[in-house]
Amino acid sequence: MKDILLVHHEEPKLNKPILVEGLPGVGNVGKLAADHLISKLKAKKFISIYSKHFPPQVLIGDDGVIRLVSNDLYYHKSKNGSDIIILSGDYQGISQEGQYEITYEVLDIFEKFGGSRIYTLGGWSVGKLISEPRVLGATTSKELVEELKIAGVQFSMNEPAGGIVGAAGLLLGLGQLRKIEAACLMGETSGYFSDPKSAQGVLEVLVKLLGIKIDFTELEKHSKEIDDLTASLNDLKPAIEKPDELRYIG
Amino acid sequence: MKDILLVHHEEPKLNKPILVEGLPGVGNVGKLAADHLISKLKAKKFISIYSKHFPPQVLIGDDGVIRLVSNDLYYHKSKNGSDIIILSGDYQGISQEGQYEITYEVLDIFEKFGGSRIYTLGGWSVGKLISEPRVLGATTSKELVEELKIAGVQFSMNEPAGGIVGAAGLLLGLGQLRKIEAACLMGETSGYFSDPKSAQGVLEVLVKLLGIKIDFTELEKHSKEIDDLTASLNDLKPAIEKPDELRYIG
Amino acid sequence: MKDILLVHHEEPKLNKPILVEGLPGVGNVGKLAADHLISKLKAKKFISIYSKHFPPQVLIGDDGVIRLVSNDLYYHKSKNGSDIIILSGDYQGISQEGQYEITYEVLDIFEKFGGSRIYTLGGWSVGKLISEPRVLGATTSKELVEELKIAGVQFSMNEPAGGIVGAAGLLLGLGQLRKIEAACLMGETSGYFSDPKSAQGVLEVLVKLLGIKIDFTELEKHSKEIDDLTASLNDLKPAIEKPDELRYIG
Amino acid sequence: MKDILLVHHEEPKLNKPILVEGLPGVGNVGKLAADHLISKLKAKKFISIYSKHFPPQVLIGDDGVIRLVSNDLYYHKSKNGSDIIILSGDYQGISQEGQYEITYEVLDIFEKFGGSRIYTLGGWSVGKLISEPRVLGATTSKELVEELKIAGVQFSMNEPAGGIVGAAGLLLGLGQLRKIEAACLMGETSGYFSDPKSAQGVLEVLVKLLGIKIDFTELEKHSKEIDDLTASLNDLKPAIEKPDELRYIG
Repeated sequence: MKDILLVHHEEPKLNKPILVEGLPGVGNVGKLAADHLISKLKAKKFISIYSKHFPPQVLIGDDGVIRLVSNDLYYHKSKNGSDIIILSGDYQGISQEGQYEITYEVLDIFEKFGGSRIYTLGGWSVGKLISEPRVLGATTSKELVEELKIAGVQFSMNEPAGGIVGAAGLLLGLGQLRKIEAACLMGETSGYFSDPKSAQGVLEVLVKLLGIKIDFTELEKHSKEIDDLTASLNDLKPAIEKPDELRYIG
Repeated sequence: MKDILLVHHEEPKLNKPILVEGLPGVGNVGKLAADHLISKLKAKKFISIYSKHFPPQVLIGDDGVIRLVSNDLYYHKSKNGSDIIILSGDYQGISQEGQYEITYEVLDIFEKFGGSRIYTLGGWSVGKLISEPRVLGATTSKELVEELKIAGVQFSMNEPAGGIVGAAGLLLGLGQLRKIEAACLMGETSGYFSDPKSAQGVLEVLVKLLGIKIDFTELEKHSKEIDDLTASLNDLKPAIEKPDELRYIG
Repeated sequence: MKDILLVHHEEPKLNKPILVEGLPGVGNVGKLAADHLISKLKAKKFISIYSKHFPPQVLIGDDGVIRLVSNDLYYHKSKNGSDIIILSGDYQGISQEGQYEITYEVLDIFEKFGGSRIYTLGGWSVGKLISEPRVLGATTSKELVEELKIAGVQFSMNEPAGGIVGAAGLLLGLGQLRKIEAACLMGETSGYFSDPKSAQGVLEVLVKLLGIKIDFTELEKHSKEIDDLTASLNDLKPAIEKPDELRYIG
Repeated sequence: MKDILLVHHEEPKLNKPILVEGLPGVGNVGKLAADHLISKLKAKKFISIYSKHFPPQVLIGDDGVIRLVSNDLYYHKSKNGSDIIILSGDYQGISQEGQYEITYEVLDIFEKFGGSRIYTLGGWSVGKLISEPRVLGATTSKELVEELKIAGVQFSMNEPAGGIVGAAGLLLGLGQLRKIEAACLMGETSGYFSDPKSAQGVLEVLVKLLGIKIDFTELEKHSKEIDDLTASLNDLKPAIEKPDELRYIG
């Protein structure tokens, strides 16, 4: 068996596509953002990526029908300017070697479609609740840094200190070796739960960069639910304890 | 050394064979069921699969003679209709890559024999003792879901929540990519021990689907032994504690 | 880099060689026995096996000169009958895949030299001190079982229950697939320490099977030292505790 | 994707180069020493080594621009005698197989440049603070042992007992198989923190062997800072406890 199996559902012609990546990770920020984008743009799945670097697992749909875990590429035809390819999926490669293999394959596919710019989306865990999560950035070139700053991305020395691990980082790292321009947008998140507010923050920057508009109602609703839950938990707390770092919430 | 070594003991001609898989897993349900089927059908071993994805281990027979751990394919010639191939074995592939490799090889062999339908057998751990274990299903197509419902298989939304992991799932997942029809029959089990009652439940559905009849005396005897043991343990308990979820047993 | 690097120190012509394997394992029994045999027979190293399946490690000699960890093949020319090849080394392959790869390579080498019989040496952990360790056996054929019984090897149903793991088992398992006759001699051992008494027991059987004689003075001396140490520890114990299973020692 | 990707920044002509290796490890001694040497010699990066055996990670520079984690080769042209190649990097290969692969590749590159002598730098953890760390050695030949003794390297039987693990050992072990002369210089270190004093000790020996001179001011400054910190911690201790093995410090 080959390390990676590709299934092509459709063979679209794409105009200078931009790749947007959002896979499971810290606070699920990247995946929440990518899935919201796919849904709002009604992007169409055109390639499924199966691999022995993913878990040996099938997921069961509500109708009882299974599908093998995968990463998937969706496309959105733009009216003016660059088309968009979105990468989402069930898992990242499990082993480090698998991470490299899969990212390398995605870049091969992306270059075949003539793509030359990538945005990867992720979360950056700060280990505490954040009422107004910032969007931090990292890029493959100084020019891109300036472009992102204009869109509201913050660059903070030594944040994140350990660099970027996983697909969101590797697409930049291996992309840089191929002279592909790429940037990572990282939403601050507690990392304690799936974080729609951080995902929305990241998406608000992304749509500016892509020159598109999307509706955020569902993410806002989910954020509100989590804020309400956090607030009610916080109300219960004073009787027991009131740690300093939670005071500013609510 | 190749990843997988095949040893052919016999070269049978098979008529549109159906593959039944039962390897070690949760509650040992799949393996118990497959081994019972092999025994009752007097199915004959025709291919042994050795692999470096299995543990580096030999097992010792009562006569002092060893054999290398393996997965094995058995066949049963049917009087009317499809022949049956049964896959049983000592282990599943240890690594995730190994799981993919071995399942892929099994599908290659199966397709060479002209097979196009697969039933995988497994257990679904519910973490408590079950007096009347259900048989849950998952399939590669909606049509098969209906067929299985008629045979008594239950489909329950979000059960099992995590999907199916291992060979029982991968044969469906990788089979689906090859347009092979496949279904997984999962017997509810506590998962605490090797569970003959759950295995029998799965087999009772399977024989209906295969249009064959087999004797269940041994499995029933083993189930009875475990029920007696559970009951006597339960009798001892009231003095100490009587948890709610065990009350209905007996 | 290839998975395995072979360095040939010499190209001996060997007459129907018999392979004896003793690598690190339970109670270090196999390695102690093989190294004693190499020393007493003044066997000569003729092939070194290096592999990325061994740890990335060099050992430092008393003179400050390093050597890369390896497995090594030694030969002994017999005056009458079969020559002997002995396999010893620093480690077994670390991963299960590595275990298979290295054993497969050893069998390739052995077959090139025209070998057709293998004895593997190992320990079988019984988890308590044994004053008179038995030598248990397992073989690739019923005929060999009878041969070994005559030499004093015991065959005990369900011992060892889990079969044989590692090189001592794989040489039998993969050897069996190549129609090579092979037997494993397992010395009972507590498994608590490097066990020269168990190694001697195994060697005493082996030399009968090989039709050779060797001196055991050093192993006997080491066994005596350990017996003395155990006895003195035992003398200290009564004041504190005297567990039943240790009473028979002394 | 190939296991290892090489990016050549420059194609220097080098005269009988000597390889100096210093990668992250015990007390970070090797990397501190190699990075100091690169800085003082103003050595130029000419090859970057990327590999799926490294973590799937990018590091972010102060300017917000990323780079994929790597090992890197730097060169220094000597006025008289051998040129110097220095190997430094972010990580060692994560898996044992990866360690072998990367070392093997480095040796391939080194031999293409006509190199035939290697010094690897590392730390040897003694598990306690050392005021005057020794430099211990290990080599691929007896001749080199004598050469190193003259330069002040100590050879101590059974130190380090476990041999040398990782790139510093493998370059010797795999180098020896290619008849490359190689030596490892190991600075004693507590192993509790990044140890500039041990790194300086190693470098002082190395520069003698290379016949060059470099400035140590920065390493001395860092050592002083750590000594001051250790002393002040020690001053605080008597009130609480004064373990024997720390008394000689200060």
